[in-house]
Amino acid sequence: MTAEHTLILLRHGESDWNAKNLFTGWVDVPLTEKGRVEAARGGTLMREAGLLPDVLHTSVLRRAITTAQLALDECERHWIPVKRSWRLNERHYGALQGKNKKETLEQYGEEQFMLWRRSYDTPPPPLDDADEYSQVADPRYADLPDELKPRTECLADVVDRMLPYWYDAIVPDLRSGRTVCVAAHGNSLRALVKHLDDMSEEAVVGLNIPTGIPLVYRLDENMRPTQRGGQYLDPDAAADAIAAVANQGR
Amino acid sequence: MTAEHTLILLRHGESDWNAKNLFTGWVDVPLTEKGRVEAARGGTLMREAGLLPDVLHTSVLRRAITTAQLALDECERHWIPVKRSWRLNERHYGALQGKNKKETLEQYGEEQFMLWRRSYDTPPPPLDDADEYSQVADPRYADLPDELKPRTECLADVVDRMLPYWYDAIVPDLRSGRTVCVAAHGNSLRALVKHLDDMSEEAVVGLNIPTGIPLVYRLDENMRPTQRGGQYLDPDAAADAIAAVANQGR
Repeated sequence: MTAEHTLILLRHGESDWNAKNLFTGWVDVPLTEKGRVEAARGGTLMREAGLLPDVLHTSVLRRAITTAQLALDECERHWIPVKRSWRLNERHYGALQGKNKKETLEQYGEEQFMLWRRSYDTPPPPLDDADEYSQVADPRYADLPDELKPRTECLADVVDRMLPYWYDAIVPDLRSGRTVCVAAHGNSLRALVKHLDDMSEEAVVGLNIPTGIPLVYRLDENMRPTQRGGQYLDPDAAADAIAAVANQGR
Repeated sequence: MTAEHTLILLRHGESDWNAKNLFTGWVDVPLTEKGRVEAARGGTLMREAGLLPDVLHTSVLRRAITTAQLALDECERHWIPVKRSWRLNERHYGALQGKNKKETLEQYGEEQFMLWRRSYDTPPPPLDDADEYSQVADPRYADLPDELKPRTECLADVVDRMLPYWYDAIVPDLRSGRTVCVAAHGNSLRALVKHLDDMSEEAVVGLNIPTGIPLVYRLDENMRPTQRGGQYLDPDAAADAIAAVANQGR
């Protein structure tokens, strides 16, 4: 089948808490200077490939929003329409939010640590609403009924809350012929790729999507990839980064 | 009448071409570092006043887009919905785009210069489509029928093309109870203020709106100001800036 639609996935660059090796989740931390450079380079790659988004979808978290702004500024697409949704947010990391990854590993042991980080359906313990890193009172979620506000999530939860946005907001933009950029997070993009590539639960937990390197999917009329896994605009850098991310937290 | 709706107008900070004293219009130049500081300060003023936008409307020009991004980042409102329209763009300056203001003054004389800059209904000569500063081929206007793409504009033209956006896009957001921020340009904001304050053509051409200082209008149920002229969040700085803008180009 011929490719009819173009989707560009962009994972945000390094954030303050990536640099500090803390679990972030829904905590709204800014990019580091390194993350800003990564973001702009993502825009350079899109410009050089002549792959220019017509519409942007982001999470409501600053690190994805800023990444998209810097990338689009770089490829002269700062003026395109923007849509944001909490459904594209990073996985809510529950009680681990704000915790150091290395200390958590030492405290709970490798098995429990890897279960929280890499299992498909085991969420960390829920975050208390009174915790300083809780988002239940954040004004950006004020319109959400309480039962939609997560206190923790596993990857399966992210797939469940992300997919309605894919079907209801992103697919219509693709169908209208637009090149769509989705600027989001490791786990919300992993959830989307699981759906696109029809990956198993076992396979998706081993998937690492590098930061700041646009991942391009060409989709057929059924919104399925013409090539599984898509194509990174800088395949060599992507391969290097995938190896580095796999060692994160160690 | 009681105020029911809140509208915040924000004129972009200093751009590269403001600094170089060139006519800019629809040419898409970035902010200077000074302009970025002005923008962030606009966000600080909103935060300090507790006046936080729920939705943003911008032009499709980088100096307004970046100003809004920096201001909203500063007051923790980076995540709000964004809508953009060419109808909020600066006045198209026709054949003057890219020209030095001082040289234009010397070449054409004070009378002609002031007529172009400050009359209500005298546009500069049209810009040739082949000119390096023409926007007729810019992809961001690709969906506009040719007759909507200006080659020059007077302030009356800006009022005519801005008002449909006010009625169709901004007013519905205000009616839904949202605090609306409009990040735009000297002349598109002047056009809006003319409408809000029901100013005469003679009065509006003398109106200067300072850059980077949020101007707050409280509107009644008829979308009319409860106080003519609104209120600047930093009235002293606004007064100083108005005097400075009046001397621009001299």
